[in-house]
Amino acid sequence: MTTPIKVAVAGANGRMGRALLSLLAADPDFAFVGGIGREAAAGAGLIDRSAAMAAADVILDFTTGAAAAELAGLCAAAGGPALVIGATGFEPDELERIAEAAGTIPILRSGNFSIGINMLVGLVSQAARALPAHGWDIEILEAHHNQKIDAPSGTALMLGEAAAEGRGVSLASVERRGRDGITGGRPPGEIGFAVLRAGGLVGEHAVLFAAAEEVLTLSHSALDRGMFARGALAAARWIAGRAPGEYNMRDVLGLT
Amino acid sequence: MTTPIKVAVAGANGRMGRALLSLLAADPDFAFVGGIGREAAAGAGLIDRSAAMAAADVILDFTTGAAAAELAGLCAAAGGPALVIGATGFEPDELERIAEAAGTIPILRSGNFSIGINMLVGLVSQAARALPAHGWDIEILEAHHNQKIDAPSGTALMLGEAAAEGRGVSLASVERRGRDGITGGRPPGEIGFAVLRAGGLVGEHAVLFAAAEEVLTLSHSALDRGMFARGALAAARWIAGRAPGEYNMRDVLGLT
Amino acid sequence: MTTPIKVAVAGANGRMGRALLSLLAADPDFAFVGGIGREAAAGAGLIDRSAAMAAADVILDFTTGAAAAELAGLCAAAGGPALVIGATGFEPDELERIAEAAGTIPILRSGNFSIGINMLVGLVSQAARALPAHGWDIEILEAHHNQKIDAPSGTALMLGEAAAEGRGVSLASVERRGRDGITGGRPPGEIGFAVLRAGGLVGEHAVLFAAAEEVLTLSHSALDRGMFARGALAAARWIAGRAPGEYNMRDVLGLT
Amino acid sequence: MTTPIKVAVAGANGRMGRALLSLLAADPDFAFVGGIGREAAAGAGLIDRSAAMAAADVILDFTTGAAAAELAGLCAAAGGPALVIGATGFEPDELERIAEAAGTIPILRSGNFSIGINMLVGLVSQAARALPAHGWDIEILEAHHNQKIDAPSGTALMLGEAAAEGRGVSLASVERRGRDGITGGRPPGEIGFAVLRAGGLVGEHAVLFAAAEEVLTLSHSALDRGMFARGALAAARWIAGRAPGEYNMRDVLGLT
Repeated sequence: MTTPIKVAVAGANGRMGRALLSLLAADPDFAFVGGIGREAAAGAGLIDRSAAMAAADVILDFTTGAAAAELAGLCAAAGGPALVIGATGFEPDELERIAEAAGTIPILRSGNFSIGINMLVGLVSQAARALPAHGWDIEILEAHHNQKIDAPSGTALMLGEAAAEGRGVSLASVERRGRDGITGGRPPGEIGFAVLRAGGLVGEHAVLFAAAEEVLTLSHSALDRGMFARGALAAARWIAGRAPGEYNMRDVLGLT
Repeated sequence: MTTPIKVAVAGANGRMGRALLSLLAADPDFAFVGGIGREAAAGAGLIDRSAAMAAADVILDFTTGAAAAELAGLCAAAGGPALVIGATGFEPDELERIAEAAGTIPILRSGNFSIGINMLVGLVSQAARALPAHGWDIEILEAHHNQKIDAPSGTALMLGEAAAEGRGVSLASVERRGRDGITGGRPPGEIGFAVLRAGGLVGEHAVLFAAAEEVLTLSHSALDRGMFARGALAAARWIAGRAPGEYNMRDVLGLT
Repeated sequence: MTTPIKVAVAGANGRMGRALLSLLAADPDFAFVGGIGREAAAGAGLIDRSAAMAAADVILDFTTGAAAAELAGLCAAAGGPALVIGATGFEPDELERIAEAAGTIPILRSGNFSIGINMLVGLVSQAARALPAHGWDIEILEAHHNQKIDAPSGTALMLGEAAAEGRGVSLASVERRGRDGITGGRPPGEIGFAVLRAGGLVGEHAVLFAAAEEVLTLSHSALDRGMFARGALAAARWIAGRAPGEYNMRDVLGLT
Repeated sequence: MTTPIKVAVAGANGRMGRALLSLLAADPDFAFVGGIGREAAAGAGLIDRSAAMAAADVILDFTTGAAAAELAGLCAAAGGPALVIGATGFEPDELERIAEAAGTIPILRSGNFSIGINMLVGLVSQAARALPAHGWDIEILEAHHNQKIDAPSGTALMLGEAAAEGRGVSLASVERRGRDGITGGRPPGEIGFAVLRAGGLVGEHAVLFAAAEEVLTLSHSALDRGMFARGALAAARWIAGRAPGEYNMRDVLGLT
């Protein structure tokens, strides 16, 4: 039995924060030292930032870009704790401050903490590197619930970026969205997107690599949005005690 | 052991005709009495129309609309044989002549002889009738090889028609092709199409009926274009000795 | 705006009862007149059986076989209300009493209220009737979460029964569970089962009808166990005001 | 335009040899210098081993273990050409002779030349390494035509080996074949196999990595057995001009 990792959560009363608190309460690998913020989440102890920094091995931050960058600076000045940042919407100077802080403390930042999605992105990138555009067509299919208002999904685009990067091209130069009517044959190198919106589907993504005589399909199915919180805890477990530096989920998965 | 069904093939040297001859040669349920036409297919005996009409229980016609309508008239005048027509491109008056001939002889006509596709169309129509538009989203996905020049596939549109008909609406009034950008939420009743073009895929079709908490998917995968010839022979087997009338593949499948 | 259907729930504090109450609270088509039982579910008014029978158009019963049969007799004697029975574990004499009651009042009984699963069962039965055993192999695949302790799932077996019945054979005479080692070729007519146990999968079922050159797949994916309560309410909506008789979910779906 | 790679084929009149000749005839990247053997394949020039060794940059060998080992020794003694060996059934001493020859010439040997299958094996191995057994269940599903006489397929077992190796365990210690009856919950770490036999399916393989809230699925679908010959030619293209050494398909894909 190892000592539990002491974690604090900034943004504990947001959607993600509440999901984290619920998982932390049930996981003996972690000791929750408190939520940081003006209001505490239901059932969560409320502490201030200094107390959290003093008590925690890792702080999970799901606030805003500005707040996360400020926290990174404070933690670096104090020589710890480690940070897992899931906040989004960063200004360039905020990203610089985080990079600077990562010279002193370990910081992992990600826009999507799903372990499976990150694994998929890594595998798609590799397959795209190995399978030549002449001979292997890449197509990306995504399906989500009928309330989603944009298409393709951000994750589908992230997969498209990974595929394009694996092939050394920009996604913008090869993407094809929505085939309809007389399209002509499919040019080699194209990366096509297809979109389904149906019922309560949480989120389905598939990347096809199709040759004349065989098809390799790498896909992910989300069963529950709780996968994001679970992945953030995996990141916290991984980063505790790590050397200073800037990390992402591919590091957690050993894909780099 | 029953007596083999005697069949002749009009259009024996076309792609479908050759596939039929190849299957007929291996199937003890049938006796091939000859190909009709100016040139015989390789290995096929060449006979004229009168001889074919005299010798055959069933003629399979994969020629043109005009030729098929003429043959239907001749067969009706002679009181037989039965006809399975896979020709396409009919003028209205040609369809009338076929309908008239069907007062005297049994005639089955179809634009797609795949047993599985016809089964799928029938099941989609039923499911669309049973599952209300408020609560059940219909989406149609199709994937074909990278040489296909149009989208969605004719079969996907046929499935969309079956779904729309099951709901008592016109497909044109509810179809949605190609979602891209800020689409807003999906309106109830919409029938969406998504298209993949990838490698050597022969032909994949899936129809989703998706509710908030469950998804019913009816799908078909073509492994080999030989499925069309096989279905045409199933039609020939079914129509031999049948009462006069106009039939289609749904009758063969007992779906009507 | 139509008058809401007045419903009572017997077994309101069981898992299914609570799911029903939650849906009823949000659905303007229904007016919940009370839960029947010794203890009320959280937030549910508690009423006795006579009051429920007097007030309700439909009673949903998710108790036990014995209690449901008794309630059926009382409702029949009183000339109403209609019953939707989801209780399981009936003795033969209990089923007889329900059949007798159905001479006076409408009663719908089912072991599985998922609309999608019932639709799937109906479609599988039809496809199995239409597609001959010589030429079309039936295989059933199911996948569930890793806590499930039996295999194949009850639903998979129900699908197998529907397929066997469609072919006019008993499932026991044709089923094949678990292929391993040197199996020899697959005999025509066999109905095979394959089982996956993986993570948090709610419940996946697929029935394949596979020919030499094409495959028809009918499948269902459960996203949330709430689908059962939703289907029971669809049954209540359907049975309100219906003529006396014994019904099941296929009637609701218009499959009979 | 680069100079075509000159290739000879040993075992040119076997199933794989004929598939290779058919591809070579259509591919300007290659110049076919002849088939080696007692009888030539249809349309193929017949040459003897010495002539083939003198003329070819690469010899593709699909004969027997003994013949391939002998050819490797001769090629090494002559300082070339490179070898791609698809023969199977090697005695230990034959493998030793091949390893020895690989000190002088480049030799690539594989039991399965499908690019997609080899890619899949590499990705499965990585995912199994990254995703812990506690939390991620691995299940392998395969489906093949109804004439296949053994189960699970050799490829499914190869995928299971790759998954087990990624987790640092032996497949024998964790595999689970065929669940039926009261199985109890699924133990963490198990690798399950499920098998479908249906119609004319060429070969489907899927490896699931399933967590409580998400599922990653890596799968392969064979459309045509020609994929093996195509992969062997990719190997020939890769090995031409390569340094001496023993290689396999993972090297071609850059996965090592």
